[in-house]
Amino acid sequence: MIYLAEFVGTAILTLLGCGVVAGVTLARSKAANGGWIVITFGWGLAVAMAVYTVGYYSGAHINPAVTLALASIGEFPWSQVPGYMIAQVLGGLFGAVLVYLGYLPHWRETAEPETKLGVFSTIPAIRSIAANFITEVIGTFMLIFGILGINANMNPLAEAGNGTLADLFGTGIAPLLVGFLVLAIGLSLGGPTGYAINPARDLGPRIAHALLPIPGKGGSDWSYAWVPIVAPLIGGVLAAQTFVLLGFRI
Amino acid sequence: MIYLAEFVGTAILTLLGCGVVAGVTLARSKAANGGWIVITFGWGLAVAMAVYTVGYYSGAHINPAVTLALASIGEFPWSQVPGYMIAQVLGGLFGAVLVYLGYLPHWRETAEPETKLGVFSTIPAIRSIAANFITEVIGTFMLIFGILGINANMNPLAEAGNGTLADLFGTGIAPLLVGFLVLAIGLSLGGPTGYAINPARDLGPRIAHALLPIPGKGGSDWSYAWVPIVAPLIGGVLAAQTFVLLGFRI
Amino acid sequence: MIYLAEFVGTAILTLLGCGVVAGVTLARSKAANGGWIVITFGWGLAVAMAVYTVGYYSGAHINPAVTLALASIGEFPWSQVPGYMIAQVLGGLFGAVLVYLGYLPHWRETAEPETKLGVFSTIPAIRSIAANFITEVIGTFMLIFGILGINANMNPLAEAGNGTLADLFGTGIAPLLVGFLVLAIGLSLGGPTGYAINPARDLGPRIAHALLPIPGKGGSDWSYAWVPIVAPLIGGVLAAQTFVLLGFRI
Amino acid sequence: MIYLAEFVGTAILTLLGCGVVAGVTLARSKAANGGWIVITFGWGLAVAMAVYTVGYYSGAHINPAVTLALASIGEFPWSQVPGYMIAQVLGGLFGAVLVYLGYLPHWRETAEPETKLGVFSTIPAIRSIAANFITEVIGTFMLIFGILGINANMNPLAEAGNGTLADLFGTGIAPLLVGFLVLAIGLSLGGPTGYAINPARDLGPRIAHALLPIPGKGGSDWSYAWVPIVAPLIGGVLAAQTFVLLGFRI
Repeated sequence: MIYLAEFVGTAILTLLGCGVVAGVTLARSKAANGGWIVITFGWGLAVAMAVYTVGYYSGAHINPAVTLALASIGEFPWSQVPGYMIAQVLGGLFGAVLVYLGYLPHWRETAEPETKLGVFSTIPAIRSIAANFITEVIGTFMLIFGILGINANMNPLAEAGNGTLADLFGTGIAPLLVGFLVLAIGLSLGGPTGYAINPARDLGPRIAHALLPIPGKGGSDWSYAWVPIVAPLIGGVLAAQTFVLLGFRI
Repeated sequence: MIYLAEFVGTAILTLLGCGVVAGVTLARSKAANGGWIVITFGWGLAVAMAVYTVGYYSGAHINPAVTLALASIGEFPWSQVPGYMIAQVLGGLFGAVLVYLGYLPHWRETAEPETKLGVFSTIPAIRSIAANFITEVIGTFMLIFGILGINANMNPLAEAGNGTLADLFGTGIAPLLVGFLVLAIGLSLGGPTGYAINPARDLGPRIAHALLPIPGKGGSDWSYAWVPIVAPLIGGVLAAQTFVLLGFRI
Repeated sequence: MIYLAEFVGTAILTLLGCGVVAGVTLARSKAANGGWIVITFGWGLAVAMAVYTVGYYSGAHINPAVTLALASIGEFPWSQVPGYMIAQVLGGLFGAVLVYLGYLPHWRETAEPETKLGVFSTIPAIRSIAANFITEVIGTFMLIFGILGINANMNPLAEAGNGTLADLFGTGIAPLLVGFLVLAIGLSLGGPTGYAINPARDLGPRIAHALLPIPGKGGSDWSYAWVPIVAPLIGGVLAAQTFVLLGFRI
Repeated sequence: MIYLAEFVGTAILTLLGCGVVAGVTLARSKAANGGWIVITFGWGLAVAMAVYTVGYYSGAHINPAVTLALASIGEFPWSQVPGYMIAQVLGGLFGAVLVYLGYLPHWRETAEPETKLGVFSTIPAIRSIAANFITEVIGTFMLIFGILGINANMNPLAEAGNGTLADLFGTGIAPLLVGFLVLAIGLSLGGPTGYAINPARDLGPRIAHALLPIPGKGGSDWSYAWVPIVAPLIGGVLAAQTFVLLGFRI
């Protein structure tokens, strides 16, 4: 069930997340030109709704960077890491397929191949691998650091070292706050790279883009694909290690 | 009282929901050109306020797709389904009449008949019955799946099979979360069809459009009317069945 | 203390509420052209913050229509009605003076007298007294009906007839929900008249506009002033009476 | 730990806060022209996330005006004031350095030096020292008055005089409400000066601007720098003193 939950949660994430990019950027959509506030609210609420829906079962990591970061500080069993990550990427792929179906007549109406790829995967505003890498590291650092902080602060009476985070997530106000955290990161740090901050959110839909019969699609930009995979994983582990090193309570 | 509550709740839904479309699209409104963020927040909060106001009495389905989906998994008595649905459509009609009254001088100022119909009922961005149907199925699937998930996750200690959902709805933070779910669906999946995802929200106001003496109104587009009725009902039942099939807790 | 609390709460309301109109409409403001989403969020959060700040003391009516509506159904003592209303109007006036001071260099930069008056008081988009009156009645009806509904639903276990609403307001999530209710009304029903839905919010700042030495100001449009006073009072009482008549729990 | 928490919290504040200004104003950012709603949500959530992350340890003042105001009414020990303030300014500086790194390729693409400075520090829309000073005093007055009010009202049963505020902050819904308070102030009172309302938010990033090798940067506008330092400190103390003088509960 935990892997199913991760699959479903990440599918909800990319259905609603890639969906909002489709709505704002594809031709003749009613949400066309909705602007950055629409895109960032869409992704933020995508996270919140995914966590509310499946958080009870798997903790709703829905992000390999979260899974790896928690494992790196002993808050998640290493044995489940591969299964979580595979489920997340497959879920991300499946959600993107639903977006393709939901916006079916709009692909042909949209001229630019890059716009179509942009619905699925992140494309940096200014291509500069080193700088893009740094931006994704900072964004994911903020994500993981914030999640750990929210978790610890929402349980001021809980004792340290109480196992995994899974028991908290998916209930109360915490998932909404994590959604607002993603909203905040998108608003503030999303400008340069489109804030992947999640390898499954980028790789899964990119595979979908490569496989789907999208009219007039271009290449899937595989040369950039490793950046939104590696940088978030590093940024997440750095954040978790720093959080512990500074002496903050888990 | 339960039918009255559904009537009042759905009237609030369309008063605030159709109202925001009127505000953004009718000529000389102060909210003119407010954009997609205004429309989606308007509908999301319309749901939240309707659920807060009457959720205590009827569970605030305010949507035949919710009622049918819950009945299909044994979480709502079939005997009350017809009454709920009738009350919802009548409520949707009544709320739309209030919108007509609230924007009284703006109908004459607005040129296009389609803009006026768009205040009441959904109009697809690209007319393609099959594709529009799929979009409404996916949107309503997400709605019902999300509602069931939020409900289950907000009550992590509750036992399975505890009767209807009505005891939760209308209290605490859950109605706001359902409003945010509708906001998320609007942001992300509303672009192609205007996200009816609710037969009463579309049929009730469409009847109002047909009956009201709106200056310069055109036809009520009855040929499309069955899509936002049938597709949401199917999407909702599919979601509820899938939810149970996957083994998620109700 | 209760009258002081109403004065302070209504001053916060118009400081933040009239302030957001100043920010969006006055020349050379950084918030210029922020749009309807900025204005409606500004007013919604103005209400929420006012209620959070003083709700504990007076229930934070900050609106004569709320005070009169509650009194009309026996939920507020008639003897305190005049004091509440006077404090609200004076608070509304004082908050508007602070807006004048906060935007001091921007009045001279702004050309149109109507823009300046619009910071203080509501101006209908299309002047039609009967229609404007109806819009304000509907908006205030929704406000009071929603407040009563939120109050009742947030306390599902509370017994009916437990005196005034003051014990709930100002705590927990309820004030935020009332702010979201005002946001919803603004988004959906604010287009025609600018949604006064509160006599003190309109009259207090209008008096401020008449008294303050605003460069290049025009008249204070006293011929319209009675509409945003009388219509909200009627709409509020109608809502409270209807709420009780329908059998909803207070 | 308390000083470390203030450093980290203020770094999060300016990382997300200055970051959103960078996103909206720097050339070729995906968030370019996102508008005032993006900027104000970015800053509001920056505050909320900072308070959630470190509020448990230090109370998350992350603002010398908060620290001084609380000390002035005996709610914070004077001995910790200098350490708090130094940590806040250094944190504000560090967060701004991260923004510089996160938007690395965008500095060269942006033409105007003033736009670059505007990412770091506030610049008044109309330069008028007296008026700008008044605006910052009013904004910070509202901030501190609102924080004290929210704190008191969220604990209706708590006794007066229960020491510092630190035990509340960082938990529950209160940090989100403080974020919404900052959002409200930004929406409504941010137009004239860009709402510093926090000396560390302005001075720390201004030092970063002066030190960093930003391509084509102009001066750091030190002649204005004292206004967003002195005015917030005065406005905050005035608010705290007024709050107590009026007899409101701490």
